[in-house]
Amino acid sequence: MQNRLVLTATVEREEDLRYTPAGIPVVQMWVRHQSRQTAGGFERDVACEIQAVLIGEDARRYAGKLAGNTVTLTGFLSQRSLKNPRLVLNIEYVEFVKG
Amino acid sequence: MQNRLVLTATVEREEDLRYTPAGIPVVQMWVRHQSRQTAGGFERDVACEIQAVLIGEDARRYAGKLAGNTVTLTGFLSQRSLKNPRLVLNIEYVEFVKG
Repeated sequence: MQNRLVLTATVEREEDLRYTPAGIPVVQMWVRHQSRQTAGGFERDVACEIQAVLIGEDARRYAGKLAGNTVTLTGFLSQRSLKNPRLVLNIEYVEFVKG
Repeated sequence: MQNRLVLTATVEREEDLRYTPAGIPVVQMWVRHQSRQTAGGFERDVACEIQAVLIGEDARRYAGKLAGNTVTLTGFLSQRSLKNPRLVLNIEYVEFVKG
């Protein structure tokens, strides 16, 4: 049951570090991707925006340092909640891309 | 500018094969994923649903054979259109998962 997204994107908005009731650090962000991709032999410009969430130690480490940066995010997709089907990228790794 | 999603999912709905004005075969589908994933050291149940589109020769090859099957889809994300930010998986490879 694979579920892995690798996305290079610019962090357009980063929320303040907060903690879950269980004390787990969480940073929410919105990222924008733009590139040129090929599918079925056809090349095209591609853009998308997705909410991404970083939890655990990396949330504390990177809080306040993400907005405005281009990053390659690796993680998995989920729907935001049982009632909200919007997709969220749950980040496992953050890599800063040199500008 | 990486943009790659690998997702194992069940094809819940598959539309009929159609052709773009330029004669390119296209199959639209909706797929549902469920798994258990770990982020930031925390394990959780994950579910999501996403529209996926297959174009080119593979659309013709797999048309009518997808619905109900579990497949691993490899491709890239885009927003559906300039006006519609909903995410779509543009499929580059389809692999049928044995049940």
